[in-house]
Amino acid sequence: MTEPLSSWHDTPTRQAILEFVAAVTNAGSPHFVPPPDRIATFDNDGTLWCEKPTYFQFLFGIERLKEMARADAALLDKPAFQAAAEDNLAYFAGLYPDDVPALLQIIFDTHAGMTQAEFAAQALAFLSEHKHPRYGLPLKQLTYKPMVELLRYLEAYDFKVYIASAGGMSFVRTVAEEIYGIPRERVIGSNITFEPQMTDAGPVLYRKPGLVEPLDDGPGKPVNIELHIGRKPILAGGNADGDIEMLWYSETSGPKSLQLVLHHDDADREYAYEGASAKRVFSLARERGWTAISMKNDWREVF
Amino acid sequence: MTEPLSSWHDTPTRQAILEFVAAVTNAGSPHFVPPPDRIATFDNDGTLWCEKPTYFQFLFGIERLKEMARADAALLDKPAFQAAAEDNLAYFAGLYPDDVPALLQIIFDTHAGMTQAEFAAQALAFLSEHKHPRYGLPLKQLTYKPMVELLRYLEAYDFKVYIASAGGMSFVRTVAEEIYGIPRERVIGSNITFEPQMTDAGPVLYRKPGLVEPLDDGPGKPVNIELHIGRKPILAGGNADGDIEMLWYSETSGPKSLQLVLHHDDADREYAYEGASAKRVFSLARERGWTAISMKNDWREVF
Repeated sequence: MTEPLSSWHDTPTRQAILEFVAAVTNAGSPHFVPPPDRIATFDNDGTLWCEKPTYFQFLFGIERLKEMARADAALLDKPAFQAAAEDNLAYFAGLYPDDVPALLQIIFDTHAGMTQAEFAAQALAFLSEHKHPRYGLPLKQLTYKPMVELLRYLEAYDFKVYIASAGGMSFVRTVAEEIYGIPRERVIGSNITFEPQMTDAGPVLYRKPGLVEPLDDGPGKPVNIELHIGRKPILAGGNADGDIEMLWYSETSGPKSLQLVLHHDDADREYAYEGASAKRVFSLARERGWTAISMKNDWREVF
Repeated sequence: MTEPLSSWHDTPTRQAILEFVAAVTNAGSPHFVPPPDRIATFDNDGTLWCEKPTYFQFLFGIERLKEMARADAALLDKPAFQAAAEDNLAYFAGLYPDDVPALLQIIFDTHAGMTQAEFAAQALAFLSEHKHPRYGLPLKQLTYKPMVELLRYLEAYDFKVYIASAGGMSFVRTVAEEIYGIPRERVIGSNITFEPQMTDAGPVLYRKPGLVEPLDDGPGKPVNIELHIGRKPILAGGNADGDIEMLWYSETSGPKSLQLVLHHDDADREYAYEGASAKRVFSLARERGWTAISMKNDWREVF
């Protein structure tokens, strides 16, 4: 039999995961959790796949803006279209949190105005074909191997594994089964609103400017977890302050739970960064005893 | 081996179900559907359980109004509380569609203002203890045996079965696993809004007056099916005009799909009724070739 979690070094982090899974799944353990309650929820960007040089969904939006400007050059008068044409990532990075209306307008311009089937085809093609600027691989291949291995390990112990992403639910669902083995109904995320229109061929869902409330970030994660799952996760994983409420919510599931927070500290193999968002979650992690994963020290391989 | 669907008479309706399941699950069939796409969605009230003398959730609301008035008699000055104290079902039946604000106020008064855990405990106790006025059984026992048998039959052929109810998602989820064998994450429905509040013990979800958009009725059913499942059902079942969009949506899933519409035509064993809502769905069912289930002629047993 293969050693479990073999792409992880045998560090206290790996041991904490193995011990937790044993504690909640061994019959006779005082912390035994029956299979229906073995819920695990993971953030996506920066937790399951790379989020640099910026969120993959922003890269998608930028490509869509470029395409739209190629079809209608007058759009280049608008700063977002101009920035996209120049691959000016700094423009987009500067919009949050300083100009949320401009950011929302980009999302509505690029993620709405088509049927759900048309959008899914665009997102799937982008994630399958667009190459990462550093690694030269299609974006959908930039998943963290040790994390995907962890998903499989949890499933082998009858966990139901969900993604709870602040990113677009429809965007991630197009590849979740292929790259994570997570069926699309187990992907929770933020979403544009749908307008059902009756056609001769039956109801068709159109994507309209507007966001499904609440956004799946920060306090919205426990809300959407309740709406989509109806149970509290006993294991949660994240990497940023938008994951704090989800991580803490998993603590309220019972006497035994596990919180994993991924630290991007590996400039050689991936990226090393710790902005204000990561500082907040790691500060709380130390306070509450959540388990930090060091990409550099805990992982034998990254991709 | 037991004959499948043995609580159904061997009528064309039963044959239509057996033939459909064979067509989409037999390897080599021209209409074979791979297991991940075998999605079935069922309405709940009047499709999987009894909806008379009125929706069980209205009975729950009435009991809650009574309890609240027992704790504070001044509430009896309000017509809804007065009607509840007098078991005046006609008052409540008359609110829809004529006085939706009053109906919403009742829902907010009785379904909000507590934590999600408190509400779930109330709903579970009610469905487990409150007796049906005609049958004398706890409400949760008033599920249709042939339909529950159909859910099991579909699961045996690797269908994923969902409930898509216009009723309260949190209400139905409290019993769905016990009475239908459907895990709570596969119950889609309407819901009150949640407000996450940070406490010393972590995030707690409070139920607040307000409704999660869209309501899970009519055109909202395909929208919520996409949000919760991300796939179109290949089989859908309902009994009222609020199910029309879901039934028709399932037709758009591919060349082979099945729509089931339950006709309440059995006054002896259950109820016989065909209001404007049922007339609309049965008229469309004839036009589009959907399969009508006659409770009287197709079912050997009801409960």
